[in-house]
Amino acid sequence: MTFDHLIDHLRQTSLLLQIAETSHWDQETVMPEKGASLRAEQMGALAATIHTRQSDPQVMEWISELNLEELSPFDRCNVEQARRQYEKATRIPKSLAEASAKAASEGQVQWVEARKQNDYAVFAPALKRNVALKREEAACLTDGEGGLYDGLLDSYEPGARTAEVKPLLESLRPALVSLRERIQEKPAPRSLSGSFPEPDQLELARTVAETMGYDFKAGRLDISVHPFSSGAVSDARITTRIDEADIQFCLFSTMHEVGHALYTQGAAHPYLPAGDYCSMGLHESQSRFWENQIGRSHSFAEWLYPLVSSRFADFNLRGPDELYAAVNHVQTGFVRTEADEVHYNLHILLRFELELELIDGSLETEDLEETWNVRFERDFGIAPPDARLGVLQDVHWSAGLIGYFPTYSLGNIYSACLDEAMRAELPDRDAMVRTGETAPILDWLRSRVHSRGRLLSPQELIAEATGMQPSTRPLIDYLETKFGALYDL
Amino acid sequence: MTFDHLIDHLRQTSLLLQIAETSHWDQETVMPEKGASLRAEQMGALAATIHTRQSDPQVMEWISELNLEELSPFDRCNVEQARRQYEKATRIPKSLAEASAKAASEGQVQWVEARKQNDYAVFAPALKRNVALKREEAACLTDGEGGLYDGLLDSYEPGARTAEVKPLLESLRPALVSLRERIQEKPAPRSLSGSFPEPDQLELARTVAETMGYDFKAGRLDISVHPFSSGAVSDARITTRIDEADIQFCLFSTMHEVGHALYTQGAAHPYLPAGDYCSMGLHESQSRFWENQIGRSHSFAEWLYPLVSSRFADFNLRGPDELYAAVNHVQTGFVRTEADEVHYNLHILLRFELELELIDGSLETEDLEETWNVRFERDFGIAPPDARLGVLQDVHWSAGLIGYFPTYSLGNIYSACLDEAMRAELPDRDAMVRTGETAPILDWLRSRVHSRGRLLSPQELIAEATGMQPSTRPLIDYLETKFGALYDL
Repeated sequence: MTFDHLIDHLRQTSLLLQIAETSHWDQETVMPEKGASLRAEQMGALAATIHTRQSDPQVMEWISELNLEELSPFDRCNVEQARRQYEKATRIPKSLAEASAKAASEGQVQWVEARKQNDYAVFAPALKRNVALKREEAACLTDGEGGLYDGLLDSYEPGARTAEVKPLLESLRPALVSLRERIQEKPAPRSLSGSFPEPDQLELARTVAETMGYDFKAGRLDISVHPFSSGAVSDARITTRIDEADIQFCLFSTMHEVGHALYTQGAAHPYLPAGDYCSMGLHESQSRFWENQIGRSHSFAEWLYPLVSSRFADFNLRGPDELYAAVNHVQTGFVRTEADEVHYNLHILLRFELELELIDGSLETEDLEETWNVRFERDFGIAPPDARLGVLQDVHWSAGLIGYFPTYSLGNIYSACLDEAMRAELPDRDAMVRTGETAPILDWLRSRVHSRGRLLSPQELIAEATGMQPSTRPLIDYLETKFGALYDL
Repeated sequence: MTFDHLIDHLRQTSLLLQIAETSHWDQETVMPEKGASLRAEQMGALAATIHTRQSDPQVMEWISELNLEELSPFDRCNVEQARRQYEKATRIPKSLAEASAKAASEGQVQWVEARKQNDYAVFAPALKRNVALKREEAACLTDGEGGLYDGLLDSYEPGARTAEVKPLLESLRPALVSLRERIQEKPAPRSLSGSFPEPDQLELARTVAETMGYDFKAGRLDISVHPFSSGAVSDARITTRIDEADIQFCLFSTMHEVGHALYTQGAAHPYLPAGDYCSMGLHESQSRFWENQIGRSHSFAEWLYPLVSSRFADFNLRGPDELYAAVNHVQTGFVRTEADEVHYNLHILLRFELELELIDGSLETEDLEETWNVRFERDFGIAPPDARLGVLQDVHWSAGLIGYFPTYSLGNIYSACLDEAMRAELPDRDAMVRTGETAPILDWLRSRVHSRGRLLSPQELIAEATGMQPSTRPLIDYLETKFGALYDL
């Protein structure tokens, strides 16, 4: 009976969290303009309700009455998740949580203003306050074994340790810088051009999503400024963005978000925390796998080329080879969200190291812009011309999202591990992609990742799925092989 | 401090109720097909959360510590509303509430099946169970002064008494039957015809809504099977339905729902129960006022005619007079939702009296169909040819909505009272409608109804707004005058 009460409590909380997701979807896609402040209040009320449930002392009483040894691994995981939610919810004093929420909201306003003025100094005071509050929060959350940053990282990548993540991510830098430098000496491929009307792009996006195995009866595709995926198993929605001059934005953001949504649609136990997604890094591995390992592969270009060339009369590329080269054009730029596979993780590394130093106190917000620019030039060979293209480009820090950036690179590392293992087990994978018969690929991910919930840590899950410990070696091999051939290195 | 705690509690509950509305909107408009059962679970979790808040004993402790005499009327009303919510939430045992919810859900399934088979007997057992549970519920809710039905009626029309509502509504019957009989002897007006493509209808609907004063920046218009309005002040959405062969469905359902939404957008204190709408009857008075007293007026036909005739090439009517006559065509039919102004309240009267008798025990569900048919023929002069066009036509009873029907007629009665008073104060009203300059009409409703919240009972609100006690006299006068002239009686 105690166990049933606990499970019922957890289930109801999960359902309320799903409602918050639907409200967020609504806000980003269909909400009328004047609804914003009302929505903020509604979301606050729902968040407070969820917090009350997660911090309910009754939960810990129920747990103390249970004999964990008698439970199945799945049920034990639910108990652990309940304990984890309780600790997260109770360790941070209410006054600090409220101050953080307020600072995050004000920080975003200041960030928008600073971007408008193209002046980091306008944003710096708000960031200083955000960082100070995040340090306080981190002190509440850390278990004393790691540094402050561990307390933040754990919210996005459960159980991850800075002491492990930092060397892992940093081992990418020399390989990526070397690859970038060698590619830069080579001629650039022909760029994609043409005019791509919105309705046709949306229709193509639907075809791509369906071919990947996305179930439109359990989801929908809409347009938003920043693409995102949200929802739960039988209602997992995605959005995309459209640029009528360049089909790549719609195409790859659709594949990215469908990657996330396939993970969501594939949950085996969607109503309980043990059935939730494993970590942000794992989630990102799914989006990046479909976006890059599939979407930017030669076989996919072979499948895609006839669809694009028949639909868009002035599409300029001739044949799958040119399409493959164009969508893999490696070009040094300032903006993370537009970066190619070679540069992307260099962008993340920069942000990860900077936020780590802000939190451990070795970098002051006053020095952030200067440090950003110096390090950017070191890694990319060019210096940002202004703050908008430099330190002010991402919303994350303004919103108090610190500890989140490394999960992007973890996702890329995990996706390369999964890619390598899958190729060994599905030797015909290229042919599957070429013909659009990708069901075995999705099945593989379903059984190894999507259906596994939180029963394993991210590292354990990757190890079990691939037969090897997660490392950067598969990602570096993948990039060297792919771009070595493409650029004749 | 105690008062602040109470107000904060009420405000949070109101915000959660609004989230439930948005979820419902989502369900009816954009939710993917497979999301239905998940959504039902989510709504259940949210409803349980709201119930827990409303039945929290802490609320009654706070109230007991307050000195009500020191509070403003608005604050005192919030306290009364909190007490009311608490009583509603605690008087019904949890087991009964759960049984009712289950029976309502199963009842709807049986109703759909019965309609498919066109056989009342398929639905009768489910209705019997629903009625039995509603009687139990009514026994919990009634204060002992009135009969069982009072306990149900009060949920929709706070403070209303069957002993007052019954004679009020029944006083309509002889006047309506007489009017119907006199009209039936007269020739019918020319019917509206043409082809009305969906996008053009939607555009016209937007123009109509804007002209009425609906703020699209605080709302939106979508299509759904059954039109409805939902939301709160700065996010008050409406839906409409489209029949490409008849523009009247879209036109009048838009005006009806905009009437509801204007009430919502005009709330002065939208986050607290004292600022909520007064009653279902009052809400319906707003929708019916705009749909009928404005939308089916000659001046509106004058404004509308050029818009329709210029947009739809094969629209058959010639001039505002023909349009006015067509949208006011009085024709005896079986279906409530398609009824004209003369027949509509006869449909309601039939349902109201039947459900009252089901609840007070003087009618058995076994005899319902027969009784329906006999009484229908008595009032309408024709007998329903089958169950679908008779006793099975409305969803309400299957869903446990008993006590709701009379609010439709109360809405019509109130709207006629408001109409008469407004005409006396705005002698130029016809000219305003004719030119589409309807702002003074909305302002009048804003100050007399929309901004008043729940500070007064429905009767008090109408009395204060119109200077007279609510009665059926204005409605009967309005119908006699309008249809007397139209049909040359």
